[in-house]
Amino acid sequence: MHCNHNIKFALISLNFLNLPTFKTNYNIMLRSHNCGELRKKDCGKEVILYGWVQRTRDLGGMTFIDIRDRYGITQLTFSAELNVELYKKAKSLGREYVIKASGTVVERSNKNFQIPTGEVEIIVHSLELLNNSDNIPFTIEDDTDGGEELRMKYRYLDLRRNVVKQNLLIRHLLAFETRNFLNQFDFIEIDTPILIKSTPEGARDFLVPSRMNPGQFYALPQSPQTFKQLLMIGGLDRYFQIAKCFRDEDFRADRQPEFTQIDCEMSFVNKEDIYELFESLIGHLFAKIKNIELDDFSVMTYNDAMKYYGTDKPDTRFGMKLVELNEFAKEKGFKVFDDAEFVAGIKVPQCAYYSRKQIDELTEWVKRPQIGGKGLVYVKVNDDGTIKSSVDKFFNEDDLKNWANHFNAEKGDLLLIMAGDKNPTRRALGELRLEMANRLKLKDPAKYECVWVEEFPLLEWDDVTGRYYAMHHPFTSPVEEDLSKLDTEPNNVRANAYDLVINGVEIGGGSIRINNRDLQLKMFNILGLSNEEIENQFGFLMNAFCYGAPPHGGIALGFDRLCALFAGTDSIRDVIAFPKNNAGRDVMIDSPAPIDEKQLKELHLKLDNLQ
Amino acid sequence: MHCNHNIKFALISLNFLNLPTFKTNYNIMLRSHNCGELRKKDCGKEVILYGWVQRTRDLGGMTFIDIRDRYGITQLTFSAELNVELYKKAKSLGREYVIKASGTVVERSNKNFQIPTGEVEIIVHSLELLNNSDNIPFTIEDDTDGGEELRMKYRYLDLRRNVVKQNLLIRHLLAFETRNFLNQFDFIEIDTPILIKSTPEGARDFLVPSRMNPGQFYALPQSPQTFKQLLMIGGLDRYFQIAKCFRDEDFRADRQPEFTQIDCEMSFVNKEDIYELFESLIGHLFAKIKNIELDDFSVMTYNDAMKYYGTDKPDTRFGMKLVELNEFAKEKGFKVFDDAEFVAGIKVPQCAYYSRKQIDELTEWVKRPQIGGKGLVYVKVNDDGTIKSSVDKFFNEDDLKNWANHFNAEKGDLLLIMAGDKNPTRRALGELRLEMANRLKLKDPAKYECVWVEEFPLLEWDDVTGRYYAMHHPFTSPVEEDLSKLDTEPNNVRANAYDLVINGVEIGGGSIRINNRDLQLKMFNILGLSNEEIENQFGFLMNAFCYGAPPHGGIALGFDRLCALFAGTDSIRDVIAFPKNNAGRDVMIDSPAPIDEKQLKELHLKLDNLQ
Repeated sequence: MHCNHNIKFALISLNFLNLPTFKTNYNIMLRSHNCGELRKKDCGKEVILYGWVQRTRDLGGMTFIDIRDRYGITQLTFSAELNVELYKKAKSLGREYVIKASGTVVERSNKNFQIPTGEVEIIVHSLELLNNSDNIPFTIEDDTDGGEELRMKYRYLDLRRNVVKQNLLIRHLLAFETRNFLNQFDFIEIDTPILIKSTPEGARDFLVPSRMNPGQFYALPQSPQTFKQLLMIGGLDRYFQIAKCFRDEDFRADRQPEFTQIDCEMSFVNKEDIYELFESLIGHLFAKIKNIELDDFSVMTYNDAMKYYGTDKPDTRFGMKLVELNEFAKEKGFKVFDDAEFVAGIKVPQCAYYSRKQIDELTEWVKRPQIGGKGLVYVKVNDDGTIKSSVDKFFNEDDLKNWANHFNAEKGDLLLIMAGDKNPTRRALGELRLEMANRLKLKDPAKYECVWVEEFPLLEWDDVTGRYYAMHHPFTSPVEEDLSKLDTEPNNVRANAYDLVINGVEIGGGSIRINNRDLQLKMFNILGLSNEEIENQFGFLMNAFCYGAPPHGGIALGFDRLCALFAGTDSIRDVIAFPKNNAGRDVMIDSPAPIDEKQLKELHLKLDNLQ
Repeated sequence: MHCNHNIKFALISLNFLNLPTFKTNYNIMLRSHNCGELRKKDCGKEVILYGWVQRTRDLGGMTFIDIRDRYGITQLTFSAELNVELYKKAKSLGREYVIKASGTVVERSNKNFQIPTGEVEIIVHSLELLNNSDNIPFTIEDDTDGGEELRMKYRYLDLRRNVVKQNLLIRHLLAFETRNFLNQFDFIEIDTPILIKSTPEGARDFLVPSRMNPGQFYALPQSPQTFKQLLMIGGLDRYFQIAKCFRDEDFRADRQPEFTQIDCEMSFVNKEDIYELFESLIGHLFAKIKNIELDDFSVMTYNDAMKYYGTDKPDTRFGMKLVELNEFAKEKGFKVFDDAEFVAGIKVPQCAYYSRKQIDELTEWVKRPQIGGKGLVYVKVNDDGTIKSSVDKFFNEDDLKNWANHFNAEKGDLLLIMAGDKNPTRRALGELRLEMANRLKLKDPAKYECVWVEEFPLLEWDDVTGRYYAMHHPFTSPVEEDLSKLDTEPNNVRANAYDLVINGVEIGGGSIRINNRDLQLKMFNILGLSNEEIENQFGFLMNAFCYGAPPHGGIALGFDRLCALFAGTDSIRDVIAFPKNNAGRDVMIDSPAPIDEKQLKELHLKLDNLQ
């Protein structure tokens, strides 16, 4: 039965998650047991269950009700022969009605081994209707008939579905086990303020007008960055916080205006300390929650990540690394390649059989604006060893064989080659690589590959504003041996920063921080901040550097992303109890919303410039 | 030595708190040990310590440095004879300089048993200065010379002091143990949104203008109340969250615009279930963190609390309960009593010796506007059994002896009596009772008495606005047997609500909630909300009640208050890492602050009506 099958899945998973068991010895609770715990050994017991009607079946003279709560489902039985009143009452119950049932546990003749309670049922002798329910707008089943918009509006009903409930359980366990682990290593959790101060450097802040200070505003934190650094200066040594952060971005797919970070900072550490500790944390979480032992983490420079994967978030579960072709492809008379800064490609295993139509479709795919490719050259290494290419007018068989050798291609492999400016071409090939992995099902969902990416550039030049931006943030220290280049060639300075990437998803990032006032000042100056701006926005931090700031560094892990990874979903909306949609709206409570004129007045504000 | 004494206190307390020990087997850390862990058994080891210079002493040819970190203090020694360079370098270090020292652990000849590391010292053979420090604005000692304003501005330095650090450790442990306990009982922690919707019912919201939705606003939550109810309707069964809450109040002493709650909700429970579970939680916290076994909690009705303690937050650690005197004091010709609605007093033990001056001073005390008493009548039961009173012109000795008997007064006791309207008089006497307990040192700081106060009135009438307000909040259910009075005498309906009071401090409160749409509608109507307002503000909740809302209830504990109680401080500012002052300002980061014109424009706002 479809419904039972789903439930079975959920319960097995819950057991697997090592959830604590419900304490029935908590003896004064209204219910004697929950709906997921009765077994054959309980036969003969008088029990009281509370829950929702999952469904009612009438077999003529007998009515069966599946009663559901967070913990499972139990079958209630009502016989017209035994009690016709009760039987009629049971028959009349609709889906999602809330009931209390008292009865005797008996062994079922017709056992259902799909669910943990399936060997027993309850002969009910007292039934109370606690609340009824209107017809629900979508079915409370794993395969629901409700679309996302509808389920978001009725999120409280969506939460009753196993998949959504399970995601919240995973989120709870991830937070709980993170705290257990970090507490063991002397981290103390410290909550930093939510009402802080706007610092226009970086992304856009959400602002909160102060009624008590007319014309002044608080800002919501984009991260607890400066506060955690102050905690290190304050000697707290090891800090963490599972912190809410806020960013007023133009909304994009799968971004939330409020999101959650596992935010950590340590004093007297170097990069390697951070790697070791947070590898252990991630290992702990996988072991506790997914029962998986992780392989060792790898370390990759930013340059290598870009070179081999075309991205700083490499998915290393599969090959198809980027291979550069300049020396083989240029100056052979093919103008597209000759004019390009950069020619490179990937080797797609055993796809030489791709049809013209398939190649054309891939070519259209790379030309989409999100990818930005100008075209796609293919080279097929046929099973008979011959080579076929879209550019065989320009390159002879030896040339193409050289390419194939350079790629280590085998018979049956397909080379896909792009050309253009270096960085865009790398990025486009990186996207193509991921796309081919999807199509060829090379992303093993049971495999988790963790990579530290390091040696990022400290600064990025922006042509539009004509200034440098900090690639990580302005508090990141340069790699020590590059310090001297800060004045002469700032674009070649590497940051003492690192990202943690799992299966191609950026799970977190951090750095060893600047703890020296002069260096921080220089950094702000390189970023174009005037001394007045520095004083206004970061005066407290600059000041703190004057009083014995220890060496320190840390990391922030994207908690929503981590939950999504563990839940096996692509969308962080699936692991947030009450998410906002891509336009930043909570469609359930209908927020944001207009406010009273009186409230505006109290805040010393006027609406202005509404389109 | 004063300084060492303070440190000893801190370390002993830290041990007592059962803090996890620092993991030195975490072997790649820069330091080999922290500054609090070396003992006699470590003698001979080569160690590397990092920390701050607590102080430097030069004894001519020998320099001693106390190096400090979060975990403790260790003595470093430098001898001119062994290494004159190093000796000179050590001598030159100032307070709060950050150093790295490598050396050999040796047994001290001159042991200091005041600190755990006091049997050893480090013969340093390598010293690195990592950062220096300006002269600090106040001393980093328990008895600091810094005033509160200064310490708030340099909060990052204040954090280095043992008392402040210790308070944050207590806060961490309270949160950690709360989570451990609740997780054991199947509660799952679910974080609810911070950007929600303004509901003008209740206190004032902080508002967040939406850039993407011109003219619309989010609000910051005053509590996760409606969300946790939706979680119960969503079948999550047991929820908790250590949640940030926000209230834009006219700032008062010891109120913070952002504060923290342990927020809990359970389905299928009654009041008694809540009591039992949260008594266990509080008991768990006292056992784990203070090593104290609590007595049983008592239960008191709101009426009894007002009657005997003049407050709904009774401190039951001491007696001096209010005693009513109407039947003994009225209609005897003393106009003050005859005109008063209510005459009552307290018996102050063994204070009959109070001088005229002392009584006068108390009389002035009760007349202060915060107390609002109109005067104070005394009756002294002298040691020889005679009675002396300020009203012996109006009452004869027999009258006064009757009073004394009614109070169960013994020789040497002092009765303090007030008259006026019933509720104000009770409140004033309640305040006087607390004041006398302070003066007589009756509030035993080592004693913790926990009381559930229940049967609060559901509604409070407000003469100014001419409407009822919910005493707890509009989602609180009435006591079942009072339901029928909702239409006829709403002011006599009791709420199914409860407060948890410890030593006279309200630590939390909660209620069994309304889970029925019609009752909730009636409640909103009694509170004067129009159907349109209900739909606009609470439509999502009213809607949710249509789909099988289970019986549910919960509690919210004031986490900052709880931390203050455990830390033994009166001010929640002492247990918050970065508190705001009583005007809602963060004086360290200087917030709130003006923002850019550009930011205002983006938010479609204009400043208006600035004084």
